[in-house]
Amino acid sequence: MDSIKIVILLFNGITALDAIGPYEVLSKIPNSKVYFVSKEPGNIYCMGGLNLVSQYSIKEITEADILVIPGGSGIDSLLDNNEILIWIKNIHNTTKYTTSVCTGSLLLGAAGIITNLKATTHWNHIDKLKKYGAEPIKSRYVIDGKVVTSAGVSAGIDMSLKLVELVRNETLAKLIQLAIEYDPSPPFNAGSPEKVSKELLEIFQKANAQKSNSEKK
Amino acid sequence: MDSIKIVILLFNGITALDAIGPYEVLSKIPNSKVYFVSKEPGNIYCMGGLNLVSQYSIKEITEADILVIPGGSGIDSLLDNNEILIWIKNIHNTTKYTTSVCTGSLLLGAAGIITNLKATTHWNHIDKLKKYGAEPIKSRYVIDGKVVTSAGVSAGIDMSLKLVELVRNETLAKLIQLAIEYDPSPPFNAGSPEKVSKELLEIFQKANAQKSNSEKK
Repeated sequence: MDSIKIVILLFNGITALDAIGPYEVLSKIPNSKVYFVSKEPGNIYCMGGLNLVSQYSIKEITEADILVIPGGSGIDSLLDNNEILIWIKNIHNTTKYTTSVCTGSLLLGAAGIITNLKATTHWNHIDKLKKYGAEPIKSRYVIDGKVVTSAGVSAGIDMSLKLVELVRNETLAKLIQLAIEYDPSPPFNAGSPEKVSKELLEIFQKANAQKSNSEKK
Repeated sequence: MDSIKIVILLFNGITALDAIGPYEVLSKIPNSKVYFVSKEPGNIYCMGGLNLVSQYSIKEITEADILVIPGGSGIDSLLDNNEILIWIKNIHNTTKYTTSVCTGSLLLGAAGIITNLKATTHWNHIDKLKKYGAEPIKSRYVIDGKVVTSAGVSAGIDMSLKLVELVRNETLAKLIQLAIEYDPSPPFNAGSPEKVSKELLEIFQKANAQKSNSEKK
């Protein structure tokens, strides 16, 4: 059984669950190892206040079987960071699967990886994919060749179970789903913009605009 | 609007998603703050290799509005740790809600908090609740008075959305669900023991027994 090297990019302003959902699933693949990597190793602050520890500098990681690019508001400052973009391209050349969660797909876009591919991202950012020459698809995750992009935050869990099937088999994917008791039962039916009222969507957009303005100040 | 103090216990051998699922939901409550706390502050290693940073010692945290006790194999060594058990009891006396994810409920049990209450935990550990005088309930989460316990790992997300409704309101809970695009669509239907084949369940139990044996060695 081939070993699987899983590389998850961390950066300040990351959404923790974007990284930890895939981590919890993929780290359970037998004979796999997860590498958390960032521009410089050390503490990485997440949206909301948590710190995750990055063990490796991007200079130390030159290949991956599965590359995971999470999202979060910190992604914006990476979109023109050549060192990161070149690193992503180089790793992508070595992967079996290059993947993203939430707005992580925008970074794949900036690295030129989703040009002419079908891709997805967080519902509230999906139009931005066109800027990178990708065809936006509203779906929990989208597989186009070896590039797998997923929708917002929690969608990384669904995508990762599929990845387990792709790199191993369906039985293992199901065993891991059972281990994390992933039998979701949200108490509300409000997980996508199509499922909520127009009023709720307006409150969401208004709150987001205010947040975005206060971040700019 | 009252501020909400959310306290999440960390310990070596924690399941990262048990803590990060609730964190991602609860940290989005306006005017709230999340405190990650452990016996000693510093790096906490999770099952699978990740390190999370604990900012506070249990000595520094004396109250909480919401206490979250995650699970993981590291819970076993805490079940007879008097310092932790007394701390949990003291915090519980100050909370609006005392909660657990996965095998975190066993620690609530050891602290005497679920005696005579309905409670739940990871499906593979649910019989252990009886040892603590609790009535085991197979459910995504169980609310009994101010004690809220949830099923395995990913169930902490469902529970936390319900907690948002309880401490604030349904509109906010839905806004947060929308923000994390929690519209789950697992690629397989294998999230609970009732949903998988007898053969798959046997493979799971056999792998678990082997792992448990190798940990004892």
